[in-house]
Amino acid sequence: MNFPTQLVEDAVTEIAKLPGIGKKTAMRLALHLLKAHESATVDLASALVNLRTKTKYCKQCNHISESEICNICGSNKRDRSVLCVVEDSRDVLAIEDTLQYNGLYHVLGGIISPMSGIGPEELNIPKLLERAGAEEIKEVILALSPTMEGDTTSYYLSKRLLDKGIKISTIARGVAIGGELEYTDAITLGRSILTRTIYQ
Amino acid sequence: MNFPTQLVEDAVTEIAKLPGIGKKTAMRLALHLLKAHESATVDLASALVNLRTKTKYCKQCNHISESEICNICGSNKRDRSVLCVVEDSRDVLAIEDTLQYNGLYHVLGGIISPMSGIGPEELNIPKLLERAGAEEIKEVILALSPTMEGDTTSYYLSKRLLDKGIKISTIARGVAIGGELEYTDAITLGRSILTRTIYQ
Repeated sequence: MNFPTQLVEDAVTEIAKLPGIGKKTAMRLALHLLKAHESATVDLASALVNLRTKTKYCKQCNHISESEICNICGSNKRDRSVLCVVEDSRDVLAIEDTLQYNGLYHVLGGIISPMSGIGPEELNIPKLLERAGAEEIKEVILALSPTMEGDTTSYYLSKRLLDKGIKISTIARGVAIGGELEYTDAITLGRSILTRTIYQ
Repeated sequence: MNFPTQLVEDAVTEIAKLPGIGKKTAMRLALHLLKAHESATVDLASALVNLRTKTKYCKQCNHISESEICNICGSNKRDRSVLCVVEDSRDVLAIEDTLQYNGLYHVLGGIISPMSGIGPEELNIPKLLERAGAEEIKEVILALSPTMEGDTTSYYLSKRLLDKGIKISTIARGVAIGGELEYTDAITLGRSILTRTIYQ
């Protein structure tokens, strides 16, 4: 790719580091900013820096928060006997969007991934064990992605949580609702038969 | 869309102002920056602000430039008798990529668009008329998009350039190379018949 100037090249290189944005899209965005009013760029840049440097995390669950304790942990309308363990804040938002869960969360801040050099000690696990050991907790739901890393992390956590004497569950894997059986991959379809639920 | 904090909402709102980026993608990018090292965000923000505030434009052709006169205008290898008029610097880069043009450029900085309140006086037209009147210029190529605004601008420029006694041309419109006739829209196909070229 030809860059007219070093400034353009630097900007395109930085933009293209974002996930899902290639050099061509980055160039389009850079040239858009050049054409737009200067305040558009300045506002964007300061919003990004503010986000990154001023965001706080809940001391209880590690979710993105306005204050020391997040709205969910601080709410008296939530069921405080269930903890849902997720990889990051994105997953909290996704589960909240479903309106199907009313318990608390615990954000690990990642999953065990030897390939990326992330072991259990990089994650927010000690706090999870402490919270799971509290008297009020009756169940921990492991809501990690159904990937090798997610399954490894779930397995590791289930072992560590075993002696707490609480229920440990994982979210159901199976055929997506609205999906067609014939287009579902064989592993998911096979698993959905093995873990079928009884009509009642 | 639910935002966990005001900082996230502000960042998502700013990111989603970029062309082709919706709120969902903006949220994904914001949460990515939160997870990545702080320097990633700071480097991105400063590259954008540097780009916007430090970029210079060629005094001759108005193309993005490192110095007062851009590499193209300053080159002694270019044909100085042809001017190619384009909407913005993106188009210069696109035409340079074709390796089919060796003349000079003139960047208008937009096209006439009454809907967006852009008239001829907002564009870099006086300098074009001055350059086109110089002795060495023999041809002006109007390389604007084949849209209503582009055609209006081309028509306006051709009228203004008429008294310069030089050749005025426009880039060929027709069937895209590699495209299939049956999928070409009727207006383009019709025009490609009317403006057919003779085999020789």
